[in-house]
Amino acid sequence: MATTIKFTKMQGAGNDYIYINTLEYPIADPVKTSIKWSSYHTGIGSDGLVLIGKSALADFSMRIFNADGSEAMMCGNASRCIGKYVYDNKLTQKEVITLETLSGIKILKLHTENGLVEEVTVDMDLPLLANSSQINTPDGKMLAKTITVDGKEYKGTFVCMGNPHLVIFIDDIKDVNLPAIGPKLENHPLFPERTNVEFAEVLPDGSLRMRVWERGSGITMACGTGACATAVAAYLNHKTGRKSRVRMDGGDLQIHWNEKDGHVYMTGPVVKVFDGEIEI
Amino acid sequence: MATTIKFTKMQGAGNDYIYINTLEYPIADPVKTSIKWSSYHTGIGSDGLVLIGKSALADFSMRIFNADGSEAMMCGNASRCIGKYVYDNKLTQKEVITLETLSGIKILKLHTENGLVEEVTVDMDLPLLANSSQINTPDGKMLAKTITVDGKEYKGTFVCMGNPHLVIFIDDIKDVNLPAIGPKLENHPLFPERTNVEFAEVLPDGSLRMRVWERGSGITMACGTGACATAVAAYLNHKTGRKSRVRMDGGDLQIHWNEKDGHVYMTGPVVKVFDGEIEI
Repeated sequence: MATTIKFTKMQGAGNDYIYINTLEYPIADPVKTSIKWSSYHTGIGSDGLVLIGKSALADFSMRIFNADGSEAMMCGNASRCIGKYVYDNKLTQKEVITLETLSGIKILKLHTENGLVEEVTVDMDLPLLANSSQINTPDGKMLAKTITVDGKEYKGTFVCMGNPHLVIFIDDIKDVNLPAIGPKLENHPLFPERTNVEFAEVLPDGSLRMRVWERGSGITMACGTGACATAVAAYLNHKTGRKSRVRMDGGDLQIHWNEKDGHVYMTGPVVKVFDGEIEI
Repeated sequence: MATTIKFTKMQGAGNDYIYINTLEYPIADPVKTSIKWSSYHTGIGSDGLVLIGKSALADFSMRIFNADGSEAMMCGNASRCIGKYVYDNKLTQKEVITLETLSGIKILKLHTENGLVEEVTVDMDLPLLANSSQINTPDGKMLAKTITVDGKEYKGTFVCMGNPHLVIFIDDIKDVNLPAIGPKLENHPLFPERTNVEFAEVLPDGSLRMRVWERGSGITMACGTGACATAVAAYLNHKTGRKSRVRMDGGDLQIHWNEKDGHVYMTGPVVKVFDGEIEI
């Protein structure tokens, strides 16, 4: 017997997921469901499936399944969308929300307008500038160091936001052939766990135009941890202050590397695309 | 002030469109709406937008807008889905429906099960085997004639189903490098309006495994007129009878080139993926 499941498609910086309130609509097999529903043409079409549930440790819990069925630890853009989902759907009246994820409890701060959430700030925790399991240098760090690929030199900075990032500043981002260089840097022997790669240009207004090559995914519209890593690297390389705007193909994120607690705060828009009903 | 529009996502042979009943939800700017809503990540995501309306000439009218906003004349897969939409949503109780399209009035025959439409047959009209504006041969025809591209010979048959098709039978479809050969045949001087290209292999069960290179679109999951052209060419080349099953990446279609009226009838499954509500 078919059951009807209500869902909401939301996007943040071009990352679009199917959001389900599992208190009302439990999903027995999220791996299979994410693969089926994420499919373009025959499914709903999305980057994956996000399950919102209850938590013993936080206000809500989040589980994220990618379009290939693999479970993700955390996604900054998805967690921001959850802030909008739970508030706009009146599951909470709080404007500061705790969220249990596979990589710990995240704190969301909602920015509302006319009773609806327009933007959300998520505390992305401390960046790590040294991580010897992720980068193969004597001190497990890299700040503006030269990497040579195919005879060409790149000046890279390593920032771990949970996942590893190699950030490279460049005068003109249009000079980067990302499909060609991305996989070579991702798989460079310096990075035992491979790495995400960000190329960034400082624009005349001080903002950062960034394009990302994601480990395992290739070119994507936007990457929340990549935006954070880029802003941290920009500060360390004296290109920006502690607050910066990172402009990606999928949209802009504002990043604040707070000097008081050392945490990185990411703020960005959250958009409900549509509500739907599907039979499972 | 935002208006909420109800829509249904449906697919036939992997062609997925957003279907709107414009009697209830008129769409003021279908070009802009199709572009916005068809977009993956930030929209609903689809091959385009289908508007169902009333007609002075037929039971219903259909307009199809592609994802790039251009208006299509007709789409067999979309017209079949309309049959399911109007019947399942009780806009009609007829099982034979007339549909006004930009390329004339089409007749749909619904196949129901438990009160819902599972398959639809659409009358795709007469195939044309001669059309001197579409093929540049002395008699405006081509039946199993050799075309040479890059020193390699292909045996092609021309069938016009409104749009032009070049059908090539081959022993093993895995030998075809479609991205390489498709554009060369599409733009061959023999075809003044360019052409769609179908490669087909006769499988041991007598069905036709077909892959299509669509004029202007490249490789697609399925093509209704291409399946009809392939079945007609297969009969003309003594590869099948007048009924055949065409297997494409997006699914199977059954084609019947009726000897009584000379029309081509296309039957295939129609699937409702989900219902949705979006603000415009």
